[in-house]
Amino acid sequence: MSSLKDLGEFGLIDKIRRSVPKGKGVRLGIGDDAAWVDWRKESFLVTSDLLIEGFHFDLRWISFFGLGYKALAVNLSDLAAMGGRPSYFVLSLGIPTFFKSDNMLQFLRGVKAASRQSGATLVGGDTSAADRFFINISLIGYAPYGPVPRSGARVGDDLYVTGTLGDSSLGLNLLKQRQRRVKRAGISYLVARHHYPAARLRAGATLARQKLAKAMIDISDGLLQDLGHLCKASKVGAVVWESALPLSAAYRSLAGTKGALYALTGGEDYELLFSARARARARLEKIGTKLGVPVTRIGACVPTAHGIRVLNRGGKTLTFPVPGYDHFRN
Amino acid sequence: MSSLKDLGEFGLIDKIRRSVPKGKGVRLGIGDDAAWVDWRKESFLVTSDLLIEGFHFDLRWISFFGLGYKALAVNLSDLAAMGGRPSYFVLSLGIPTFFKSDNMLQFLRGVKAASRQSGATLVGGDTSAADRFFINISLIGYAPYGPVPRSGARVGDDLYVTGTLGDSSLGLNLLKQRQRRVKRAGISYLVARHHYPAARLRAGATLARQKLAKAMIDISDGLLQDLGHLCKASKVGAVVWESALPLSAAYRSLAGTKGALYALTGGEDYELLFSARARARARLEKIGTKLGVPVTRIGACVPTAHGIRVLNRGGKTLTFPVPGYDHFRN
Repeated sequence: MSSLKDLGEFGLIDKIRRSVPKGKGVRLGIGDDAAWVDWRKESFLVTSDLLIEGFHFDLRWISFFGLGYKALAVNLSDLAAMGGRPSYFVLSLGIPTFFKSDNMLQFLRGVKAASRQSGATLVGGDTSAADRFFINISLIGYAPYGPVPRSGARVGDDLYVTGTLGDSSLGLNLLKQRQRRVKRAGISYLVARHHYPAARLRAGATLARQKLAKAMIDISDGLLQDLGHLCKASKVGAVVWESALPLSAAYRSLAGTKGALYALTGGEDYELLFSARARARARLEKIGTKLGVPVTRIGACVPTAHGIRVLNRGGKTLTFPVPGYDHFRN
Repeated sequence: MSSLKDLGEFGLIDKIRRSVPKGKGVRLGIGDDAAWVDWRKESFLVTSDLLIEGFHFDLRWISFFGLGYKALAVNLSDLAAMGGRPSYFVLSLGIPTFFKSDNMLQFLRGVKAASRQSGATLVGGDTSAADRFFINISLIGYAPYGPVPRSGARVGDDLYVTGTLGDSSLGLNLLKQRQRRVKRAGISYLVARHHYPAARLRAGATLARQKLAKAMIDISDGLLQDLGHLCKASKVGAVVWESALPLSAAYRSLAGTKGALYALTGGEDYELLFSARARARARLEKIGTKLGVPVTRIGACVPTAHGIRVLNRGGKTLTFPVPGYDHFRN
């Protein structure tokens, strides 16, 4: 019998997906950023995200407040990637009994901060003792303009991302190294990007409303891995130009010899990656101002046979042995 | 600073409830078996339940198939307690990487069995490596006749339960003692009641449709504890007659000196406890046949000042020091 380590996280999800018949009322089931289902004459989106101490976070590097904020933000990001808006969420907590009440109140304040910003309302959940802290949030929302799936990209589409890439994972890395020599301002910017991801709700909804994004996903496992998911769902390949990747000033000054590595493979950016028809290029060049976040063209969709390639500055193809993160394998 | 052990599970939930403003569209928020919220011109119910290895289950005493079945069933039971019907659910799994793929497929088969019986459809979720196995399910459903809250009981109401009580916890106890001397058939009945709880969806919905149940809760933490929740929400006290508690034949033959102890305080019955006006007594006496499960009158609601009392066969009041189970304290 094979262990889950051999099967891998996405192997397991594939098995689950194949074993579950597409139910009545399910417009978009397992395998996108959120599910989309009928509700009487309406519909809703639902998504769920799990954060486990020691696997997804380390309390040495994040405060309880930050963790509460982030736990909701990563779910909001999933809805943003569908062009959706949040409504209600339920919160399940596994909590070590030796935790202080005050820690949990700080955590709840963080949840509430993200809740207030986004308009998502906490309506229930469950709590239990556990030996590691973990959090599961299930978030329900709607897609006022119809959701944008991962599967809508075509060969010839352009590829875009919002914001800048790699800040979050570089920030975490520097935090762990406790690099005090480097400019403090730059580090704290990157670390804030790691602790307080900005779910791109407004950008996602606008791209959906204007029918600009044809396929969309949020970058949680690193650009290359999530691009892989988008490509797989859309049955296309992709070319990415390393020189086009949007990097923050702090990233440029602090990434050192790693260059674009964090931007390509670092996780937890929670920016949006989407494909758009080439004819939308002029509109998309100007849209950043409107969305309140830069939108950058980073590549194009090509036939599947080409796979996913990254062209470096010299025009050579870079290959990345492990594109992103598999929770069972790393 | 106090630890969570001092605050307790329900203390924490109270703190969460008080700290969360009742949001727009929330008809019934934190603190019932499920939340009830507006959805455009419709509404839905949502509930969430967490099961953690070593805290809620032990893989020595339950199969992966049974655990999958039960993980969904306990959520279905929450909807049943609102008079609701299930629609969609999302499944989050924390899985030790050394688990066999085959175990997870067995688990999924159990989930599917409960899913097929109830009509609930799996639409998404999340998976991660973890050091203990845990499961969170968030279930969305509807209340075709309006949900029955915990808060609708009045002084003078009768108290009823469906099915029989204590089977599940007695079954688990015998399983742990590996009692081979006692009649095998009886034990396997009790153990099946522990592994495959029958969420009383039909009973709950019928009691809601006929406006018979005024306050309702499912018995997951033991009769006395859940009666406490119902009484607290309804601002009433209660008297329970020990001699009236419905006990299965297997329970009667195997409980020995423990008498009604498991029926009063054992957890995981997943039967319904509800209050009804005294004038409905004649209708409720005959309703068991229609519901496909016995309905038994076990007591009455009294003024809050009387607290919760259990009258034993001699007419004396029994006091139970720890009514049920608090996940942070036990």
